[in-house]
Order: sequence, then C-alpha cells, then structure tokens
Amino acid sequence: MQLFASLPDRVTLVEVSPRDGLQNEPGTVATADKLRLVEALLAAGLTRLELTSFVSKSRIPQLADAEELVRALGPREGVRAWALVPNAQGYGRARAAGLTEMAVFVSASETHNRKNVGATIADTLARIREVASLARADDVRLRGYVSCVWGCPYEGEIAVGGAVALARTLVDAGCEQVSLGDTIGVGTPVQTARIVDAFARELPLDTLALHLHDTRGTALANALTGLELGVRTFDTSVGGLGGCPFAPGAAGNLATEDLVYMLDGMGVRTGVDLAALCEAGRVAQEVVGRRLPGKVLNAGPPVRRPS
Amino acid sequence: MQLFASLPDRVTLVEVSPRDGLQNEPGTVATADKLRLVEALLAAGLTRLELTSFVSKSRIPQLADAEELVRALGPREGVRAWALVPNAQGYGRARAAGLTEMAVFVSASETHNRKNVGATIADTLARIREVASLARADDVRLRGYVSCVWGCPYEGEIAVGGAVALARTLVDAGCEQVSLGDTIGVGTPVQTARIVDAFARELPLDTLALHLHDTRGTALANALTGLELGVRTFDTSVGGLGGCPFAPGAAGNLATEDLVYMLDGMGVRTGVDLAALCEAGRVAQEVVGRRLPGKVLNAGPPVRRPS
Repeated sequence: MQLFASLPDRVTLVEVSPRDGLQNEPGTVATADKLRLVEALLAAGLTRLELTSFVSKSRIPQLADAEELVRALGPREGVRAWALVPNAQGYGRARAAGLTEMAVFVSASETHNRKNVGATIADTLARIREVASLARADDVRLRGYVSCVWGCPYEGEIAVGGAVALARTLVDAGCEQVSLGDTIGVGTPVQTARIVDAFARELPLDTLALHLHDTRGTALANALTGLELGVRTFDTSVGGLGGCPFAPGAAGNLATEDLVYMLDGMGVRTGVDLAALCEAGRVAQEVVGRRLPGKVLNAGPPVRRPS
Repeated sequence: MQLFASLPDRVTLVEVSPRDGLQNEPGTVATADKLRLVEALLAAGLTRLELTSFVSKSRIPQLADAEELVRALGPREGVRAWALVPNAQGYGRARAAGLTEMAVFVSASETHNRKNVGATIADTLARIREVASLARADDVRLRGYVSCVWGCPYEGEIAVGGAVALARTLVDAGCEQVSLGDTIGVGTPVQTARIVDAFARELPLDTLALHLHDTRGTALANALTGLELGVRTFDTSVGGLGGCPFAPGAAGNLATEDLVYMLDGMGVRTGVDLAALCEAGRVAQEVVGRRLPGKVLNAGPPVRRPS
C-alpha cells in the first residue's frame, strides 16, 4: 500500500512531563516526587527529558527547585536532560547546576509571546542570541521551541511563514533542533502537513520536532501526519500530564503511552516499554493526586492473544 | 503535497449514541430523555441515526422501549434511522413499529459472537439470511455490522481475511453497507490500512463504514487512515458515549464532535454544525448524568481569530 510506505524503524521521544507537564499543576510537587517520576520514566526507557526550567522562582513556584532537581538527578549515562532558560541569567543558573543541554523558547504569536515572557518577539530573539553565544563558548547544546504555531488563544490562526522563519532563526543561532508547538491543541492534519512542508522547504527535517497538545483530540492524528511526512522526534508527556488541571477531559500534552501504543502497533520502535511507561503514568498520577487523561494508561494493557 | 491529495468534499456520519452509546449505561434512561437527545442530534445536522435495538427486552432493559422510541420519533424527512435486529422475531417487532431500515450484526470472533448472541457465526449468518429474505420482500433497507475486526477480548488479533469474508457475506445477503467495528479499541493505523485494503480488494469502498472505538486514543488516527484510503462513512457517538461507564477515561466510541472538528479543519464537510453538536453532547451528559470523554465537548469551541 502507498500509505505508510516509508515508515521509519525508530523515532525519538522527548518526555516533557517533569517540566511542561508539572508547570501548571496547583500545589507544589516535592523534589523527591519529581525524582520518583523521573526515575520511573528512565526505567521505562525514555532517555530524553525536558527536566525543568530556570525561570524566575517567584513566577513559577512549581519549578523553583530547578537547581536541586538537576543536582539530585546528576548526569546519567545515555540520558539527555534539558532545562528551559529564558535569558543569560537563567543560563548561568542552569550552567552552575551542571546542565549541558538547554532549551530556548519563543512564541510564533506576538501577543502570546508578550504575555508569556513580557517581551516582544524581537527582544526575545535578542535574549536567545545572547544565550546561544554563551552556549557556544561553553559547548552547551541547545534546543529551541516555537509555541502557538497551530494557533494562538489571542490571535487565532498564525501565519506558517512567520513560525518557520522563527525556527530558522533558532537553528541559525545554534539550536540543534526546533520543536514546533501546538500549544493550545487546535491543529488538524492538513494544517500539520502544511506546517511540516513549509519547515522542510527551509530546514532539514531532522531539525524538527513536533510538540502536540491533545486538547481537541487531534494530537495523535497530527503526529501520524508528521510521521508520514518524515518527522522523527515528538515531544510527549506521560499520562497527558500538562495543560489546565481544572478542565477535566481537556487534555494537555499528547500522552506518551498513547503515541508509544500507536507506534508499537505500526512497527516503529521508540525504545520505550509500554507496561513500564504505564507504571510511570501511575507514579505521575500519585504525584499530582488525580487521574490523568492518557487513554492507554486508563485502558490498561493491550489485549494479546491468549497463549 | 502528496498526503491528503484526494480528500473528499464530504463524508457521511452515522450517529450511534442512541443505541450503541446508551446500551451499556447503568440505570434506565427514560424514553423522553432519549427523544431529547435524538432531537438535539437532528438539530445539529446529523441525519443518520442508529436508534435502538429490537433484542430481548430482558437482556438489554436499557433498550426495552424500542417500539415506543421508534413510534415517538416517527418518520422524518431526510432522516434515516436504523434499529438492530438479531433475528426474524426482532425484525417483526421493528417492522411493526414502522421502521424501514434495519441492521444485522455478527462478530469476526467466534468466541465473542457466542458470548454476544449465544450462537456460532454460522448460525448467526443463517439468522441474518432469514432477516434479509424478509427485508427483500418488504423493501426494507439493511445495514450490516462486523464487530471485533481489529481484535477480540477473548481471541486477541483476528484474521483480516475472515472478517472481510463475513462482510462479503453480508453484502451478498443484501446489506447496502457493512460497518467494520474496532469494538474494543485496539486498532492502529497500519492495521487499519491493512483492513481497508483487504476490504477494497473484495468489495466497493462505498459499501464500507468504519466503527471505531477510542479506548486507546487511536480512533481519530484510524479514521484519518480510512479517510485517506477512500472510506466515506464513519460511525460515531456524541461525547464518545458508549463503552464501559465504570472505567473513567477509557472512552467508548469515537466522539462525533472530535471527528467533525478534525474534518472541519481539513475542509471535509459533514453537514453537522459543531456548536449545535456540542449542545447535543451536553444533552447527552445530562441524560446519563455524568461527564463524557469527547475532547472537543470538554475543550469548548475552537479558537477563532478575533474580528
């Protein structure tokens, strides 16, 4: 069949639950609980983690233990862990804590960017270039994020050209990979194909990751579309942790176990063990004290032919 | 782009919430409440409904009001409403109630079929032929269902060839269309493509409908795969009503509003108004007295550019 004629053997998952997943949780999650979650994720075979963020401690109290978390985890063989750094000051803190991988971020929407970081896109890019210059000198590896690519809660649909230009700016500044985010989960497959196509005309596809939210149930269909078009890295969060915890059913991130289940069924390896991943999902549920929306987590193990 | 090069202008939705959706609900839903749900569905633009089932009243008390419901709704201009009939007796009841469209059903799994209807597949096909013979004489239109095509809770994976052979038998017996069901929601896209391909080698694609469950989050990705391969009819249930109401998060049917949202975003018309459909979803929630898992229902209206 023509469809799925060129599926890859393997894709890479970046697990974002420790940072993106926990960031909006009400009530502070103890560092020890975060470590318990991270250890469960590592035990499931996830090796790339968005760990925390070195933003203002007063602004996001949930991530105020960034230093402690990074130091407690320490470097691990074969594991890559990123922290978000908004500026040179955050970079300095992350560097002092011993991190060698960091992530910079900007929104494709001017309004969202101002509300998110209190600066214009242009000023944010200037801060990113400053961080990138420090990273080059220190041999620190950088990842970039462009958020609101599929749509913005304030501006509605976003022009694809502008988002791709921002991705190019981040790559030119030194980012190894740029993760395009459907931050509010409005994307549908034709739009996803348009975004991936536009990116591929400007940059190599191995510099692209998709960061999809499942707010309207389309995240897996969008991931499938990206996969078919050559995307090989996806950001996901165990249990779908993330988004707004006060809107039951309105899921946040694409659940890692849902993507792994689909990919397992398609013969695409992730290096992740689904049963151990569901165990990590149960740890995540304990840590935040509520049921998470990930479907495979809730449905239990897949049905197998009785032996 | 090659992907989505041949999307249709329009697809047909068969709304199954009144029967498949309500069948497993604990506590009897009043006929008046079912009618309220049906009216809300019709108001949203859905014109094809799986309305009820003429099975033993003692076996499924939730659907014991089949006659009353059919009579109360009456024939509606432009609306097609099916009832499931397991045998000649059920056919007789449905016919007496005034229905001119009925549905017959068989499982692709021998074990599931025995547990579901207490008969072998062969005996079930004999009953179906009996119903089909009556239907031909009465000019009643028939739809067929083959369940457990993607997998069975007892037998695990099911051979595609057997399921397609059953579909062919149903078409040969007089069914206008056969709906293949991922009854336990285990399907992934490559498997879906394999099933659709196998069907298309035996029968015209316009005789195929997909009835997908979202138990493991893959229903929309499977629908997308079917859409790309030429499937033009999908069975869905508002709010994702259906499945086991005692397993929170373990969704049943693919939510109508999630599929409509995705198709709207892809420029594929369904004739359904998304806002009115979400209103029908709220009616469904009132009727069953609990929150339903449909994502778009929970997330609220899609973001639009402020005017």
